[in-house]
Amino acid sequence: MKTRLVRKGVFTLIEDVREAVSPPSEGFYWIDAHVDELASLQPLFGLHDLEVEDCLSEEEQRPKLEVHEGHYFIVINSIRFDDEEIFLRALNIFLGRHYIITVTRQKINELRSVKPILLQEQVDQPDVFLYHLIDRVVDNYFLVGDRIETRIDQLEEDILMHTKKSHLEEIINLRSEILWLRKALGPQKELLHALNKRDLKLIDNQLQHYFGDIHENAVKIAEAFDTYRDLIGNLREAYQSSLAGRANEIMRVFTALTTIFMPLTFITGIYGMNVDNLPGAHYRWAAYGLLGLMLVVGFGMFYLFRRKNWL
Amino acid sequence: MKTRLVRKGVFTLIEDVREAVSPPSEGFYWIDAHVDELASLQPLFGLHDLEVEDCLSEEEQRPKLEVHEGHYFIVINSIRFDDEEIFLRALNIFLGRHYIITVTRQKINELRSVKPILLQEQVDQPDVFLYHLIDRVVDNYFLVGDRIETRIDQLEEDILMHTKKSHLEEIINLRSEILWLRKALGPQKELLHALNKRDLKLIDNQLQHYFGDIHENAVKIAEAFDTYRDLIGNLREAYQSSLAGRANEIMRVFTALTTIFMPLTFITGIYGMNVDNLPGAHYRWAAYGLLGLMLVVGFGMFYLFRRKNWL
Amino acid sequence: MKTRLVRKGVFTLIEDVREAVSPPSEGFYWIDAHVDELASLQPLFGLHDLEVEDCLSEEEQRPKLEVHEGHYFIVINSIRFDDEEIFLRALNIFLGRHYIITVTRQKINELRSVKPILLQEQVDQPDVFLYHLIDRVVDNYFLVGDRIETRIDQLEEDILMHTKKSHLEEIINLRSEILWLRKALGPQKELLHALNKRDLKLIDNQLQHYFGDIHENAVKIAEAFDTYRDLIGNLREAYQSSLAGRANEIMRVFTALTTIFMPLTFITGIYGMNVDNLPGAHYRWAAYGLLGLMLVVGFGMFYLFRRKNWL
Amino acid sequence: MKTRLVRKGVFTLIEDVREAVSPPSEGFYWIDAHVDELASLQPLFGLHDLEVEDCLSEEEQRPKLEVHEGHYFIVINSIRFDDEEIFLRALNIFLGRHYIITVTRQKINELRSVKPILLQEQVDQPDVFLYHLIDRVVDNYFLVGDRIETRIDQLEEDILMHTKKSHLEEIINLRSEILWLRKALGPQKELLHALNKRDLKLIDNQLQHYFGDIHENAVKIAEAFDTYRDLIGNLREAYQSSLAGRANEIMRVFTALTTIFMPLTFITGIYGMNVDNLPGAHYRWAAYGLLGLMLVVGFGMFYLFRRKNWL
Amino acid sequence: MKTRLVRKGVFTLIEDVREAVSPPSEGFYWIDAHVDELASLQPLFGLHDLEVEDCLSEEEQRPKLEVHEGHYFIVINSIRFDDEEIFLRALNIFLGRHYIITVTRQKINELRSVKPILLQEQVDQPDVFLYHLIDRVVDNYFLVGDRIETRIDQLEEDILMHTKKSHLEEIINLRSEILWLRKALGPQKELLHALNKRDLKLIDNQLQHYFGDIHENAVKIAEAFDTYRDLIGNLREAYQSSLAGRANEIMRVFTALTTIFMPLTFITGIYGMNVDNLPGAHYRWAAYGLLGLMLVVGFGMFYLFRRKNWL
Ligand SMILES: [Mg+2]
Ligand SMILES: [Mg+2]
Ligand SMILES: [Mg+2]
Ligand SMILES: [Mg+2]
Ligand SMILES: [Mg+2]
Ligand SMILES: [Mg+2]
Ligand SMILES: [Mg+2]
Ligand SMILES: [Mg+2]
Ligand SMILES: [Mg+2]
Ligand SMILES: [Mg+2]
Ligand SMILES: [Mg+2]
Ligand SMILES: [Mg+2]
Ligand SMILES: [Mg+2]
Ligand SMILES: [Mg+2]
Ligand SMILES: [Mg+2]
Ligand SMILES: [Mg+2]
Ligand SMILES: [Mg+2]
Ligand SMILES: [Mg+2]
Ligand SMILES: [Mg+2]
Ligand SMILES: [Mg+2]
Ligand SMILES: [Mg+2]
Ligand SMILES: [Mg+2]
Ligand SMILES: [Mg+2]
Ligand SMILES: [Mg+2]
Ligand SMILES: [Mg+2]
Ligand SMILES: [Mg+2]
Ligand SMILES: [Mg+2]
Ligand SMILES: [Mg+2]
Ligand SMILES: [Mg+2]
Ligand SMILES: [Mg+2]
Ligand SMILES: [Mg+2]
Repeated sequence: MKTRLVRKGVFTLIEDVREAVSPPSEGFYWIDAHVDELASLQPLFGLHDLEVEDCLSEEEQRPKLEVHEGHYFIVINSIRFDDEEIFLRALNIFLGRHYIITVTRQKINELRSVKPILLQEQVDQPDVFLYHLIDRVVDNYFLVGDRIETRIDQLEEDILMHTKKSHLEEIINLRSEILWLRKALGPQKELLHALNKRDLKLIDNQLQHYFGDIHENAVKIAEAFDTYRDLIGNLREAYQSSLAGRANEIMRVFTALTTIFMPLTFITGIYGMNVDNLPGAHYRWAAYGLLGLMLVVGFGMFYLFRRKNWL
Repeated sequence: MKTRLVRKGVFTLIEDVREAVSPPSEGFYWIDAHVDELASLQPLFGLHDLEVEDCLSEEEQRPKLEVHEGHYFIVINSIRFDDEEIFLRALNIFLGRHYIITVTRQKINELRSVKPILLQEQVDQPDVFLYHLIDRVVDNYFLVGDRIETRIDQLEEDILMHTKKSHLEEIINLRSEILWLRKALGPQKELLHALNKRDLKLIDNQLQHYFGDIHENAVKIAEAFDTYRDLIGNLREAYQSSLAGRANEIMRVFTALTTIFMPLTFITGIYGMNVDNLPGAHYRWAAYGLLGLMLVVGFGMFYLFRRKNWL
Repeated sequence: MKTRLVRKGVFTLIEDVREAVSPPSEGFYWIDAHVDELASLQPLFGLHDLEVEDCLSEEEQRPKLEVHEGHYFIVINSIRFDDEEIFLRALNIFLGRHYIITVTRQKINELRSVKPILLQEQVDQPDVFLYHLIDRVVDNYFLVGDRIETRIDQLEEDILMHTKKSHLEEIINLRSEILWLRKALGPQKELLHALNKRDLKLIDNQLQHYFGDIHENAVKIAEAFDTYRDLIGNLREAYQSSLAGRANEIMRVFTALTTIFMPLTFITGIYGMNVDNLPGAHYRWAAYGLLGLMLVVGFGMFYLFRRKNWL
Repeated sequence: MKTRLVRKGVFTLIEDVREAVSPPSEGFYWIDAHVDELASLQPLFGLHDLEVEDCLSEEEQRPKLEVHEGHYFIVINSIRFDDEEIFLRALNIFLGRHYIITVTRQKINELRSVKPILLQEQVDQPDVFLYHLIDRVVDNYFLVGDRIETRIDQLEEDILMHTKKSHLEEIINLRSEILWLRKALGPQKELLHALNKRDLKLIDNQLQHYFGDIHENAVKIAEAFDTYRDLIGNLREAYQSSLAGRANEIMRVFTALTTIFMPLTFITGIYGMNVDNLPGAHYRWAAYGLLGLMLVVGFGMFYLFRRKNWL
Repeated sequence: MKTRLVRKGVFTLIEDVREAVSPPSEGFYWIDAHVDELASLQPLFGLHDLEVEDCLSEEEQRPKLEVHEGHYFIVINSIRFDDEEIFLRALNIFLGRHYIITVTRQKINELRSVKPILLQEQVDQPDVFLYHLIDRVVDNYFLVGDRIETRIDQLEEDILMHTKKSHLEEIINLRSEILWLRKALGPQKELLHALNKRDLKLIDNQLQHYFGDIHENAVKIAEAFDTYRDLIGNLREAYQSSLAGRANEIMRVFTALTTIFMPLTFITGIYGMNVDNLPGAHYRWAAYGLLGLMLVVGFGMFYLFRRKNWL
């Protein structure tokens, strides 16, 4: 747990978190805690049992805003990539008049990357801090969206070019990811709508307009994911059609070859019969004549099938 | 039927249920009845005919809250596993100012497992009892959700690894279960929204905030089941594609073998013809030469098909 | 047309319908008319032209409640079975302060089966009569629902056990029935919601709570039909997969047999060639040796295909 | 352009349309104009530029009601059949206090067929004229609905009986028509809801109840088309299953025949081998014995395949 | 950046944009800027940081209306064709009391084509300018809609006539385009609804009625795109059925040919057996007789398969 006094975006580390209970003469306190350290903060800042329970939960959290006496409780999910997998990590925030407490179980990049912005914007208020933090969290969803869009386009092209059986698993994994993310985007939109529109005393009215900008982004992301889900239908269709088409084509070639050899074998059968007076069997060039005939029949059929686009 | 006086979470068994009609000096009464015992309770607590009818019904019940003069009637479904099957069991609750009546047809685990919590939290009010009871009921849905998620993931993997015809039945059963549970989750959400948001005199205002926490869980579960339903599409697709793919592959091998033997048989046919002067038929090593030719043709085709990925 | 004076559930037949225009000293009048007899009732009870038009229409009717000066006009569809087919029959009801008029084109069972209930409950008011009548109408939908559920389960099992081509037609008919009934269930819910919630002077406030119970049933039925529609997807899938699987399997057996005979025929071809010095052709047991070889090759392939689960 | 003075349903032709600007002593004016004649009417009746633009547009029109100072502008689409094709034709109506202007590009049957009704009902008000006109327009949709229902049922039966490739095109055309009509039915419902429920000064309150009756019909039609769209799924399924089934069956017969001849040809191959001591080759009835054996094998296989339902 | 003073639709170029800060004696200023020139305008017209950020963004923009102190910020997407591809280009508009600022990244045709209209209508107000500009932007969507409709119809016909593998890619591309455009049409409807219905001081009330006309068009376009998406199902179905049908047909011909040659080859096999006393083998015309028999069998089978429609 790190307690910082933030004044015009400049951090001063505070030793004892209890100092943060009363308002500073200037700026605000930012307490950055691990979920396991929450127990000691609860009595100091009057956190509700249910809030603590939510922070401690290892389940996926629904983004939300809860208005309590003296502070707000905000949950939002940060998104990140690691080795081609997408992870959602709950970021729990307690926003007070003169402090902001961020509670996380795992490292969340945005808590680090927000720092230079605070300095640059000379942030002096906890609600402004909240805005920049959530702004960064939501912006990262665009990166994931772009990546998914790229994967869809790439996969579509791959499948149309050269379908492989492994594409099926890729389609299925991609759809799973899109469906799970879509589920998470609904409540995120609601949270940002609340931060923009609800009458919130701890957030400056001017600032709420800025949350409207993030809300717009959240809506854009959710709409994009709805479209991704629909586009997956393209992949499925391309995969099934291409695979079936390729299987049919190979079978067609095999069957065509068999079909071409049938009449040839039939001719050899005729001249293989042990009957008297097979016409021409005793001519000198009989064998060559028959071979010539068979060549003509075989290539004739081959040419015919080709011309009919059957082969 | 068991009648208990509950004081700070401690139970005292009461012999005569009629004692529970008037408020105790401290704590509240909990009457735990079987549906068949409801007849004797109806006049004592002024239960409505329609309420009794609902409790007696053997049909699946929709979760609901009905506000009556003097008491509330609450129906919620408890979920449980037995031998890989999911059962919903109606839990009927009558909440009064100084009593709570639970009416069930079958054993409901939550009525047992809630007891230690009552003791620990020193529960002294019927509405707090109600909260802990419903909290446990709803939490059990998460277990079912996790189990279904596991089954989906497992089945997906199984199908992609080695599709079997029995997977079809498993997919169908899984989808049925998800669809029936989804249907039950809609009204459960409504019930918990009502307990959280409606103006309810028999439930402490502070406590209604706690019901909001359960409502949030109910929403999470319902969203998860919507996603499960969509994910089932993955299973269907994996099954169909894999099965069709496997069938095609086997047929392809068979057909390829047939196709390879066609020209070989054709060559034997040529030399089986009863014509004079078959070229080379009387050479000493004719048979071996032809066998060699046929090996070359056969393996040539085999190699060609392999290289084209047709075999 | 039958006109009855109903007092505490006891019927007294009235000769002249005009008597029913003015209120009885006790009880109410129930006029049970055929649509063709409506013309004579219209002026007596001030029925609206559009109401009469609706009753006379041979089209399917949408359930509805229309509030007129002095009476309500209610349309609901009764459901019944005949020879495995489902029929909806419009039941038109005019509810007045002291009378109820039921107008039908065909026999409706509920009009008969409601009578013992009236006697038992000693019904003395037309709105109570209306409640019991609609209660019975809606309850019958559960029977249809259960029947459809049974058919779905049975068909699913049949298809998985032994798919037949006739199953396709059964699936299609079942889906048609479910889709048409689903369409009818939406407005039925609306009607019952109106009877429960709207401010209706001709229906006792206490009684409206009872209509809420029917409304709950109507919602349950509609939700069940939504689920039936989704479950039909299971049948379609089971049918298509099973049929395709069976067709593939038969073809596989045929093709495998052909494939097994190809090398055997090839061997006979080799020894059928008219070349000198066929190796071993003049050994005494050549024929038996070759037959033995062919047996080994044939059964070897058969065994191989079996072990690979291809046959 | 025809200008008529309508008194108790009786028409009197008016030469100069400018007469219609001021109210008649009795009845109302009906101006029936072609869209090209609208220019001369615009200044006389104070029509808005946007209204005129809508009338002149050759695009499909959305049904709507626009309330202007002094008149209403109503657009509704008339439906008609010609050679198995469905056409929507915009009917533009300007309703004033003492006049109604109908503006069309093509002939609309309802403008002719409404005349006898006006006479019979002795219509004396433009809003009553409007009611009868729209009533007829909407009733025609039922005819189209019934026709589509008949085509669906017929096609379903045809497909199940004897699937043809042309059925695919029929299904596709039918679905297109249903989808385009469905799109048109949404705004039509809205228009009729507005005519029924909005506070409209130019329409008699008593009459608005009658528009409610048409609104009910518009809702019925829209619900029916939703169901038609869902039923199309049945056709698609029947077509695909039947076609695939038939293709499989033919292939199965071919393959079975081939499979039956394989062992027979194999036997001839054995006795075609040029090896010494073929067992029984020199018996007198060898040929007949072998032919007998081959008959037994061939018919045995045929019988076996039949019994297994493979053929 | 071009600054123009617009008086009755006539343009006068202004050198210094700072002149546009104060209202002209007559008409209004139109500043047509590139996004890179926005920095200099921001302080002059008091543009908000978030507005500038939106203009500078290279992401796709959601159409929207933001009401600020002193000006409105409007974003709408212009649509255009280039080489069979569809592009959306953000058009950012700042509407003030006496000025309108249009900010774009790329050339937008409507900004050029609106000029003659301004002159013709003698536009003197910035809100009227806005109306004509947006009217043109939205009208262009109809062109795209018509083009998509044509492509769907054309593709449907092509596929039914002669299915090609490239059709799959065309279907997939078409569906992608429709899905992405559909996503963009939702917020466009909202924007136009706001311009029509919200209480907007900077837009003349009379003029808002005109925006209602554009809103109607936006709704029409959105409904058409919903229908296009549904119609794509037709294409998919035609493609899959035709391709599968054609593949089946070719295979059927091949297999039929093979099947026809089987019994013929069998007959040759019989007479190829090295057994004594082959019936008729030593008749003079044996070879011709057998060839005749084989011709009869072969053509008989061919004729039979044809009559059964198998070939
Ligand atoms: Mg919680
Ligand atoms: Mg999860
Ligand atoms: Mg969850
Ligand atoms: Mg992007
Ligand atoms: Mg996964
Ligand atoms: Mg297939
Ligand atoms: Mg009930
Ligand atoms: Mg039920
Ligand atoms: Mg059930
Ligand atoms: Mg979980
Ligand atoms: Mg089941
Ligand atoms: Mg449902
Ligand atoms: Mg969801
Ligand atoms: Mg009617
Ligand atoms: Mg019908
Ligand atoms: Mg109907
Ligand atoms: Mg049931
Ligand atoms: Mg039917
Ligand atoms: Mg439902
Ligand atoms: Mg217009
Ligand atoms: Mg059109
Ligand atoms: Mg259009
Ligand atoms: Mg009909
Ligand atoms: Mg068409
Ligand atoms: Mg419907
Ligand atoms: Mg923005
Ligand atoms: Mg994009
Ligand atoms: Mg986007
Ligand atoms: Mg068009
Ligand atoms: Mg693309
Ligand atoms: Mg639509």
